[in-house]
Amino acid sequence: MKIGLAQLNYMIGDFNGNFEKMKTAIEKGIAENADLILFSELSVCGYPPRDFLEFHHFINECSTIIQKLAEFCGNKIAVVVGAPSKNPSKNGKDLFNSAYFIADGKVQFLAHKTLLPTYDVFDEYRYFEPNHSFDIFEFKGKKLAISICEDIWDTGEENPLYKINPIAELAKLQPDILFNLSASPFNYNQAKKRIDVVRKNATAFNLPVFYCNCVGAQTELIFDGGSLVVDAKGNVIDEFDYFVEAIKFYEINNDNTITQNSEFKIQNCSSIQLIHDALVCGIRDYFKKLGFKKAILGLSGGVDSALVLVLAVRALGKENVLSVLMPSQFSTSHSVDDSLKLLENLGSPHKIIPIKEVFDVYDKILQPHFENKPFDVTEENLQARIRGNYLMALSNKFGYILLNTTNKSEAAVGYGTLYGDMCGGLAVLADVYKTQIYEVCKYINKDEEIIPNHILTKAPSAELRPGQKDSDSLPDYSILDKILFEYIENRQGPDEIEAQGFDEALITRVLRMVNRNEFKRHQTPPILRVSPKAFGSGRRLPIVGKYLES
Amino acid sequence: MKIGLAQLNYMIGDFNGNFEKMKTAIEKGIAENADLILFSELSVCGYPPRDFLEFHHFINECSTIIQKLAEFCGNKIAVVVGAPSKNPSKNGKDLFNSAYFIADGKVQFLAHKTLLPTYDVFDEYRYFEPNHSFDIFEFKGKKLAISICEDIWDTGEENPLYKINPIAELAKLQPDILFNLSASPFNYNQAKKRIDVVRKNATAFNLPVFYCNCVGAQTELIFDGGSLVVDAKGNVIDEFDYFVEAIKFYEINNDNTITQNSEFKIQNCSSIQLIHDALVCGIRDYFKKLGFKKAILGLSGGVDSALVLVLAVRALGKENVLSVLMPSQFSTSHSVDDSLKLLENLGSPHKIIPIKEVFDVYDKILQPHFENKPFDVTEENLQARIRGNYLMALSNKFGYILLNTTNKSEAAVGYGTLYGDMCGGLAVLADVYKTQIYEVCKYINKDEEIIPNHILTKAPSAELRPGQKDSDSLPDYSILDKILFEYIENRQGPDEIEAQGFDEALITRVLRMVNRNEFKRHQTPPILRVSPKAFGSGRRLPIVGKYLES
Repeated sequence: MKIGLAQLNYMIGDFNGNFEKMKTAIEKGIAENADLILFSELSVCGYPPRDFLEFHHFINECSTIIQKLAEFCGNKIAVVVGAPSKNPSKNGKDLFNSAYFIADGKVQFLAHKTLLPTYDVFDEYRYFEPNHSFDIFEFKGKKLAISICEDIWDTGEENPLYKINPIAELAKLQPDILFNLSASPFNYNQAKKRIDVVRKNATAFNLPVFYCNCVGAQTELIFDGGSLVVDAKGNVIDEFDYFVEAIKFYEINNDNTITQNSEFKIQNCSSIQLIHDALVCGIRDYFKKLGFKKAILGLSGGVDSALVLVLAVRALGKENVLSVLMPSQFSTSHSVDDSLKLLENLGSPHKIIPIKEVFDVYDKILQPHFENKPFDVTEENLQARIRGNYLMALSNKFGYILLNTTNKSEAAVGYGTLYGDMCGGLAVLADVYKTQIYEVCKYINKDEEIIPNHILTKAPSAELRPGQKDSDSLPDYSILDKILFEYIENRQGPDEIEAQGFDEALITRVLRMVNRNEFKRHQTPPILRVSPKAFGSGRRLPIVGKYLES
Repeated sequence: MKIGLAQLNYMIGDFNGNFEKMKTAIEKGIAENADLILFSELSVCGYPPRDFLEFHHFINECSTIIQKLAEFCGNKIAVVVGAPSKNPSKNGKDLFNSAYFIADGKVQFLAHKTLLPTYDVFDEYRYFEPNHSFDIFEFKGKKLAISICEDIWDTGEENPLYKINPIAELAKLQPDILFNLSASPFNYNQAKKRIDVVRKNATAFNLPVFYCNCVGAQTELIFDGGSLVVDAKGNVIDEFDYFVEAIKFYEINNDNTITQNSEFKIQNCSSIQLIHDALVCGIRDYFKKLGFKKAILGLSGGVDSALVLVLAVRALGKENVLSVLMPSQFSTSHSVDDSLKLLENLGSPHKIIPIKEVFDVYDKILQPHFENKPFDVTEENLQARIRGNYLMALSNKFGYILLNTTNKSEAAVGYGTLYGDMCGGLAVLADVYKTQIYEVCKYINKDEEIIPNHILTKAPSAELRPGQKDSDSLPDYSILDKILFEYIENRQGPDEIEAQGFDEALITRVLRMVNRNEFKRHQTPPILRVSPKAFGSGRRLPIVGKYLES
């Protein structure tokens, strides 16, 4: 039997566009004499469709595409595609998250997802009823079992999140092959875990596994693909490239071994390279899928905006990214010089628009209302907001999308100005800690100095008052980032972090800053997610509360 | 047996503060010779604690308070309080959403929530394992059954969301009384539904029901209280006042009838009055719980900011709300006059800071970069952003919280400027349609003209270009709001809305505006929720997608 895997980049709610993509894959499958093509989870509507699933009209559109696929395949080829299906029982949620096996021009078999991830960025129990019954089906002499994403992830170790292991249930029915349709978002740990999980399932149940993931970014969620073919002994027969679409075919022999049709090596990328590639993918898809071509950003001379510029140039092309330098009276000369050097290295356009004149008028008009209070964070924020206004004005006038350059350390402690440097359509770096940002920059500079070295070596500064340094208000990033990682990624409490040797007063201060600045993060643009715990839909906390305040 | 109900306003994560509140209620109960006091769902930590539940430290703090409550009650009184509890099984989620029955100085009985709402603003399956076993306990000769919030809501009609009815399971054990601990957020339909649901449970199972809700606002969620005592025949013995704390006691007689200790009437408020009261409560608690006293807002002369001002004055006191009038060259004279009249009626302070001078400097500086493109939305947005900058500068300098005045119709179609009039710490009206806003204003004016009539009768305008009217860009609000209501509240698709007689092209235009402006709503301040479907955590949609675009 010849099986194809289609690792594609879908668009949420673009039923016709998604159908056309699948059609192309099916045509390729027919040309290759494949028996069956496997697509990814909810491929018909794109993942995650979120509350669109609550619209009957949306669900009906999915059904229409299923029907069109059945007609298009006819008796030439079979497919397994992902789409919601209606729960025939009146009790429970109205939908299942399903895989449709289509052959001979009609839906022959439906499998529903059993384990519905409802944690971090996932809300599946919001929409779907979990599956409770298990079945397999026969196709061309092979017994096939279908699972969907999370179904293979709860391998029963340590602290299982669910009470049932659907693969163990399916295995009792003695299938020959296990399919898995996934929409499994990227984080820098995911690829290794995915290989491990797929191999564990293969060996635990002595089953070859065909694992098909989607690829591409859906707003803040990035899907890296990395689809897998693993034989019953747990040997990885193939791993798809990350962040690109691909359709590949495999011959399953009568003894259930899988013929490997080309040389390959399991990709062994550093987490820093993965973050780099994911961010480029995230920017590219955000623009492409929204129908925009051009980005704008404020280039400060600091490391964050330098990195965003490089990533944006790689995603969109150097001519499509406009950098705006907006020096103030507090800007150092190297801020402009370093930025110009970087722009020269990239060959990317820029404008210089100083902010002092506007600032002075604001200052003159507001002074009588300020009751002789001294220069403080108000004036610092005002500078950031004037820059935000310039950038948004150019964005509005010419149709640029503004890229936000906030990093995760700043986003965590609220070191940024709402409606100032926190403006933007997409927050590129707000899931990358400051210390990681330097590493990504070094990765970019590995062969040549693209980002001027001075940007990477000077002390970080917001340059909003004379001689300001980040270290005036914040602990050293090498310490701050470790505490933040324990609190955010590892969900450690103050006592647990203290047990790791950090200073108690510092921990209290940092954790309070994180909690108190939830109000700022609430108004942040969508943040490209590259870590296992990003700000945004994966981390939901009250704005008003008093945890760790006393 | 004498039972007390404590309808209290908790603070999320403020363990000591919540304990002190409960202690006061317990002291009152002891003074009244009560046998037991019932508190609301997750009363120990406040509801909704969201991802704080993922911190061991947070859960341990809850346990500490349970222990302190047990010690404080001793053998003087029993209590039923809500808090998370650890799931002793290694399979499944780590926590239950539990009610602790505490008597004789220790936890005597634990009941877990069975139905975990995971829709709209609720994410309970994100955190909790559902209960699967049912038990009751005896106390002073009465058999008591405990349920938690949603457990009584799935009454099995039409399209039940769950497969099990926990009250039916408990009823099999023949309890004498049913308790329900709730944290059931307000919307303008909720009070009537709540009475209906509690009465249905009472009569269906022939059980007196003591229903204890919390009260007060938690960021965007407002809890109206309205706790209920209903006898086994479904007679409402008492309904607590809305939006206020109260502790009340009831005698259950040997024949299970309940002695009514005071006259009362089921409250029969209009939805408009409820919206008014809820918004005042929402503003008051947002400020109080964050430790702020003073609000600032931009007063435009239009109906939205006029209403926010009145609500803020009612919530915070007239001296604590600063209105800023920021006329431009496009402002009509009546904008300022109407605002001043309103301020005079309220006796509330204001400032006037025109924006033209700053605008002109921006315009002069940006013109060379605009490549002779004409005045467009860029300049309109710039005016809104200058106003945002003024307001944020005053907010930063003096510690005001900026109140956002966007209404739901505008938020839906994106008729507003990001970082301009969309700034703020709290969006007061963004869950109130424009047509409803007029009704709330009329309610405010029912006895005297507080909001000048001219504000209510003139045509709505953003006044960002000469002679501009909302109706230049938007359909009439009376039509727009109906289409929006069908799409947002009723989740009707384009064909279903068309079947109601609206114009197809208009529906397409409106629905696309709603979908395309998800990026703006993503950056909106938290929105006080008064409807059954508010923007914010209760409505989750992709920013990037193509649904209804082709």
